[in-house]
Parts: sequence; structure tokens; C-alpha cells
Amino acid sequence: MIAEKTIVEYMRASTADVFSTMLGLEIASEQEYTDQNAPTVSDGVLAFVGMAGGWTGSGVISCSAAFACRLCNQLLMSEATSVNEEVLDAVGEVANMIIGNFKTMVEEHLGPLGLSIPTVIYGRNFTSRSLGTNSWIVLPFSCDGEIITIRCCLAPAKEPLAVRAGYAHTSTVLA
Amino acid sequence: MIAEKTIVEYMRASTADVFSTMLGLEIASEQEYTDQNAPTVSDGVLAFVGMAGGWTGSGVISCSAAFACRLCNQLLMSEATSVNEEVLDAVGEVANMIIGNFKTMVEEHLGPLGLSIPTVIYGRNFTSRSLGTNSWIVLPFSCDGEIITIRCCLAPAKEPLAVRAGYAHTSTVLA
Repeated sequence: MIAEKTIVEYMRASTADVFSTMLGLEIASEQEYTDQNAPTVSDGVLAFVGMAGGWTGSGVISCSAAFACRLCNQLLMSEATSVNEEVLDAVGEVANMIIGNFKTMVEEHLGPLGLSIPTVIYGRNFTSRSLGTNSWIVLPFSCDGEIITIRCCLAPAKEPLAVRAGYAHTSTVLA
Repeated sequence: MIAEKTIVEYMRASTADVFSTMLGLEIASEQEYTDQNAPTVSDGVLAFVGMAGGWTGSGVISCSAAFACRLCNQLLMSEATSVNEEVLDAVGEVANMIIGNFKTMVEEHLGPLGLSIPTVIYGRNFTSRSLGTNSWIVLPFSCDGEIITIRCCLAPAKEPLAVRAGYAHTSTVLA
């Protein structure tokens, strides 16, 4: 088991470290809160990294399109002014580093976890929703007047529903 | 290792089984292809399920808003006519079952894999991008004149980049 307080502490440490070490940006932690819903975005970028093992969950970074460009420019010393593939990859890489470090920290409590590949979504108006999640821990950070938000959910893994009782896939596939 | 042909075969079997058993819908497999890019959607729904372990990857289902409602109505015997939370949860659950069954099949080749929680995105115009993925296997299925597409990528896991050499998170967090 892991306390919510510990998740908050680890996520803050991991985020601050990635920002200062990899991006050369100082961030300030705002008050954390919990939210029943996954984020809805208008003109922004969302990067997801899944965690799976004995526990399962997701880490999600969301920020404005402008701040996504800034992250890219800091990480790659580029000069992006609008969201392009390089910007999306940079935000995904930042998410991968933050959630990857966080994962290493929580593994001491929860045992080995794998990371899924980061997925980045960009659009002007979209909704996200994650299944089986009752509660997200939401950590806003401010950086030069912008807000970047990190969300995390983690719960003991449940096996997915079998298609039917006694479902024997090998007979379907290999027969 | 696992052959692309085997991934295609397993994904088709898993999808057809979930559609016929859980949704009461018959689907027809269209020709598969590979794509360098993750899907871009205009007015549709995307559901992701991450896979993580010795291998890492993602399964993604995409369909139109109208077909998402149909999936929901078939799964839950509801009468949704526009995309609401119930519809998003239903598409996520369908993704979870398809990728979950697929995971069970590929585990015979690749060893144990965990599933991340399904994440569903809905919007009128958005782009997705997945990091470190050179190639998606894309499987279109037709069902009553609609196309539902399932994409899959799988590759041996790489550990995420450490924030810095010799990075010792415990001293940062617990000091």
C-alpha cells in the first residue's frame, strides 16, 4: 500500500527534478487536490503514461499549447512556436521522465511496475476519461505564469473481464 | 519474439470474439496495414490500453461518434444518441476486453504483461502521437457500413531515461 501523501511527495520531487535538471526551469508546487474526472482540454496537450504490474494506473501531464512549445524549446533547444510533431514528442518525453522516475520511487512500496509507451494528444477541444478510476490526485505547478498539471491514479490491478466463462482463446485462434 | 502475422491473427480473433459474444455484432476483417503514425480523429472516439512488462506497447481502438454510441447501446442495452460518459466508458470497456484477451494470447510468447487502465478521448478534431513507436499494425473492421479500427504496437521494453547519472531519488525525497 502507499499513502496519498507519499504519492504527492514523490510526484512533486520527480517533477521538480525533471524540470530543473532536464529543462532548466524552476517550478512552484500549487495545492494538490483530488478529482473524480480525467481532464478536459481546450487548445492544449495531454501526455499519458500507463503503469502496470501488481498495481495499475496512469500519469497524465496537461498544459497549454504555448507551454508545450516552451517545454520542447527547453528540452531540445529548438524554436517551435506552434505545436508540431517535435513538440508532441518532447511533451511525451517529459511525461516519460517524470512518470518513469515516479515509478522507480513507488516500486519500493508496490513492487515492480512496467511503463506503457507515452501517448500524446493535441486538440482544441477534447475530453478524456479513464476507466475504473474513482479518484485522480491532481498536482498543479506554476512556471512563469503558466500552469502545468500532473495527474496520477494508482490502484491494485484487476484482471480484465474474460470474454466468457471458460474462454479458451487457443482453440479459437489455433484450431 | 512474436511475428507480425501472429499479432494480426490474435488481434482479429480477440476482436471478433468480443464483438460476437459481448456486443452481438458480426464484424468483417479488412486488409491490415502498417502505419508510422498514431491516429488523427475528426469527430470520433479513441480508446487506449497500454501493455507493459518485458515488452511494452499499446492497443488503440478508434471509431466514429455514431459507432461509439452503437457499441454502448449493444453492450449496455442503453439508447445513447450522442457521446456521453456512459458511451466513453463502454468504448473503454470494449477496448479493455479486446486488448485484455489479446494480452493473454501474446503472453504465451512474450511472458507476463500488465495492462494499464483504459483511457478514452473524445473530440471533434485531435491528433495523437505515441513515443518510440516506429510502426503500428492497423486492423480495420467493417460492421454495418461503419469502420472500427484497431491499432497495436509492441516492442521490447526500454527503461526510461534516468534524470541524471547516479540519480538517487531517495536522498531528494526523504532527506
